[in-house]
This record gives sequence, C-alpha cells and structure tokens, in this order.
Amino acid sequence: MRNSFQINGLERIAVVGVGLLGGSIGLALRAAGYTGRRVGIGRRLESLQKALNYDAVDEVTCDVPAGVADAQMVILGTPVGRFESLLSQMAPALRPGTLVTDVASTKVEVARLAARFLPQTVRFVGSHPMAGSEKAGVEYARADLFEDALCLITPSRSTPADTVEQVSGFWQALGGRTVKLSPARHDKLLARISHLPHAVAAALVQISLRNKAIELAGPGFGDATRIASGEPAMWTDIFRTNADNMVQAIDLLIAELRRFRERLAKDDARGIEKWLASSKLTRDQWVALRYEQGHKPKGTST
Amino acid sequence: MRNSFQINGLERIAVVGVGLLGGSIGLALRAAGYTGRRVGIGRRLESLQKALNYDAVDEVTCDVPAGVADAQMVILGTPVGRFESLLSQMAPALRPGTLVTDVASTKVEVARLAARFLPQTVRFVGSHPMAGSEKAGVEYARADLFEDALCLITPSRSTPADTVEQVSGFWQALGGRTVKLSPARHDKLLARISHLPHAVAAALVQISLRNKAIELAGPGFGDATRIASGEPAMWTDIFRTNADNMVQAIDLLIAELRRFRERLAKDDARGIEKWLASSKLTRDQWVALRYEQGHKPKGTST
Repeated sequence: MRNSFQINGLERIAVVGVGLLGGSIGLALRAAGYTGRRVGIGRRLESLQKALNYDAVDEVTCDVPAGVADAQMVILGTPVGRFESLLSQMAPALRPGTLVTDVASTKVEVARLAARFLPQTVRFVGSHPMAGSEKAGVEYARADLFEDALCLITPSRSTPADTVEQVSGFWQALGGRTVKLSPARHDKLLARISHLPHAVAAALVQISLRNKAIELAGPGFGDATRIASGEPAMWTDIFRTNADNMVQAIDLLIAELRRFRERLAKDDARGIEKWLASSKLTRDQWVALRYEQGHKPKGTST
Repeated sequence: MRNSFQINGLERIAVVGVGLLGGSIGLALRAAGYTGRRVGIGRRLESLQKALNYDAVDEVTCDVPAGVADAQMVILGTPVGRFESLLSQMAPALRPGTLVTDVASTKVEVARLAARFLPQTVRFVGSHPMAGSEKAGVEYARADLFEDALCLITPSRSTPADTVEQVSGFWQALGGRTVKLSPARHDKLLARISHLPHAVAAALVQISLRNKAIELAGPGFGDATRIASGEPAMWTDIFRTNADNMVQAIDLLIAELRRFRERLAKDDARGIEKWLASSKLTRDQWVALRYEQGHKPKGTST
C-alpha cells in the first residue's frame, strides 16, 4: 500500500530525542535516499554529539522552538512523560501545515496532549512503530530497524485523511507496514500484547531473586525476561498513561493463571496439554504470518 | 573444574530419544573427540534414520534392552512421561557399573523412578543441561549446544560421589559448566526460573487472542512468548511432575502482579519505576555474569 508520499518533498525533518528510535529514523531516512536536513533536538549536548558522530542527524540543537521552526515534519521520540513540556515549547514555533507525529507506546494520552497544545494549523497524527529493543541510546540505532516492522497509525475522528496518508507514507518510505486504528483501541490491544508482557517479565525477574534461583537460569529465562531490561523511566510513563487497560490486562492474566493452576491441582493432563497446544499453535501461526518472508524479529539480543 | 573423567574410557554410549538434546549429545561427543560408538535408541525408525543422516549417532535400534546391553553409559533424552516404561525395559539388560543419567527438566520424579526401577549395580544420577530451544527434532541438534551451558547434576543423599563426578565430567567434556544440587531444590528453583516462565508465555499467548490483539504484536511479544512454542506433550510432563512447586510459583507471581496492579491503581510513579529499575538491574547483572565472556544465549530463534 505505498502511496504518493515523497520524503524528499520535506526539506527539514526534526527528531526530538535522538535515542534508539529517533536515531534509527535518521539512519533509515538517509538509507531511503532522503536528501534533506535531519535535525536532532535533545536536552544533552553529549547525546546530540553522539547522534552526529553516528550520522543519525545532520545538525543538532537543544533549543526546541529553533529546532522545529523550519521543519516540515517533527517526530517526537522521547518518553511520553516529556511530551507536555515539548509540545508546549514547540507549539508557537511550528509553521502552519507542519506534519507532527511521535513514536510513543501509548496513544490516548498523546492524542489528548496534541489536541491541547498544538495549534489547529499543524497536522498531527500519532504513530507507534513496533520496533526497537531493550537497549537505549543512538549507539543501538539501525538503518533497517523499521524494515518490515508494523507501524501503527492512530488517527482520532477529527484527523484529516491526508494527514494519516502522509504519516503512513513516511513510515512506508522507511520500510514499515502501516496499520490504522483509533488511539483507544491501540491502547487496549497494546496493553495485552506489549505492556502486560513487559510487566510480567519484570515480575518474573523479581521471583527469580528468591533463593537465588536466577543463578540457575538458562536461555529460556533470558528470552522470557529480555524486555525487563528496558528503560524503567520510559516504561513507567507507558504504564501510567495506560493504567486502566493495564489493570484489566493484569486481571485477565491472573484469571488465566488461576485456570491453569486449577488444572495442575487436579492433575488434568489432557486440559494442560490442550492449553499448551493451543498456545503453541497460535504463536507458531503468528510467527509464520509475521515473519513469513524469512525476516527475523528485530531488536533481539542478550 | 575439569576432572579425571575421560569420555574415551566409554566404548559405547547409548542415547534414548535422539531429538534436539539427544542428537546434540551425539554431535557434541564427536566434536569433543569421542571415538567410541554412539547408539541411538528410539521408537520411530524414521527419526532414527534422520539421526543417522545427521551423523548424530553411529548405529540405531528400536530395541531398548539390546541398545543398552553393551553400553557403559546410557542417557535418557525423552520426555519424563516415557521414563517408567524405558527404565523398566532397560533395567534387566544393563551391565553392572553402567552410568545412567537423563536430561529431563524435573528431577524428583526421575530420582524416584530410577530408585524404583534400576538395579543397585547401576550408577545413576540425574542431569539437567540448561540448553535447547523451543524447536524439537534432531534437525535442530548442534554440536555446540552445551558449550558454556549450565548442567545441573542432582544427586540424592545415597548417590556415590564418584557417580556424580563421572556424570559431571561427561557434561564438562561436552563444554558444560556443572552445578550440583538436590532433586528437591532443583525442582523448586526450576519452577521459578523455567517452568513458571513457560506457563506465563502460554498464558500471554492466550490473552493475545482476544480482539485479535496478536495481529499487532511485535518483537517484544515474540521474545516474551518464544518458549510457548515448545512441545506441549513434553511440557505437560514437566508441569505434572512439578505440580506442587508450580502451584507455589504461580501464587508468587499472582501476588507480585497484584502489588504492581496496586501501584498502577494508585498512580505510584516512584514505586513503579523503582520496581522496574530493580528488575532491570537484576536481569542486566545476570546477563553480565552469565554471558560475561561474550557468549550469546543458546537456542534463541524466531
């Protein structure tokens, strides 16, 4: 579903927060043949210098209004807890017609903040590229991070269709596969497939500490808990801005675990195996569908 | 901690069940310079033929007593649900002094079955190499599967020290790092770091089915649920033979999730971040310690 969007129609693209995702956007833009200016905006000169060294951006600044002033597109790549401050700083400086999006993992709160702080003249729609890893920092940025990655685009009812199309085209230009859904639906579903697994990974690590069980842990534990090595501050923002859905998702999981516990206590061999077989089938089908072209999942490492 | 064990002191080593683990033992033996005969025992001629084709064994048979009769060492590599039948079949055929071990993931039940079915003249101690993957079959066997892997050796109080030393030496010859602990302690700790994560992965997949949320899942979900693609029959055996510890582990997890749910409901930002930071620190330290020599975890894949 490529559309008519041309990245080189944008002379300047500003990325606020040049970490793993922001840096990868910069690298992917260059790899996709983008010839315009990539502007990196951040708080710490040291990180910005690193982004320059990695050629993730062409110029950098700590001055948010100055950084976004001449950009045709602005992408927020910081944790969502910084959005209120950033949006209010950039709002007066944005040109009419500027395309604004973000890469945060919760979208209802982002839509609320954008509606509150951005002027009507600006074209905003939220994005959530399902890429990244538990690593943080531009040193882990990759030009191919969005290649074949799902990029969720979350228009509100009032978002103009051409804004959605432009932002979708942007991610497609970087190799992503775009899917549209409402911010509310996004947050509800992501609680189940992303935020809950993260909380569970953290909980499994806590339990592994008892009796120093973790000292015996092997590769399966490593996989199951990998996401628990993600950034605590960023994930605190995600959980807090999706708290209601998270509480529901935790309740679903507790109910599911209780049913399994029941089968164990009754030594219900058939019930246990059926449950495991159904989970295996579902996951194997998902892997086949998701990675059918032989692509490996991105961002997996120790 | 290499000891005086010499694999070439054993003329014949029999592996019962030549799948991922059994096949890897065969390949690792050859890679370690083993010059004796590797005997593959199984139920299906087709699997045994495959094992021969992969050079995981030198000869094969479906006849358990005949296969173990002249072996100096026998390793059970099937799911634990098959052990009762296998041990009772092989018991009369085993030579006095034969070393017997296994690779099952639960050890109390295995120790009980060995004590019940094996003659006193045979030297038995359980093993649990922490290696493998969610894949099944000799086609996924690897000569380096045990390289740097933890191999848990689980003597009972009555196990002679030299039996423990011999079996430890066997795994060390294949590249493993051995740790001794009692079967009861093994099962209690493994419930927390291996069996619980497996059940949770299966539960997360079940939850991801609601509203087709799984269609939006990304690499984090893939990592967190990878082990749910494991063999249902094998895992049913593991859960059933470690049911009491599993019930306790599930209760620990539910309590941990409830505390997190509480923090979310109260919007306790500091509590959430502290909890996440503690899990991240623990896991990062584990990764550093476990893979400090730059080794990647084994067996991770799509």
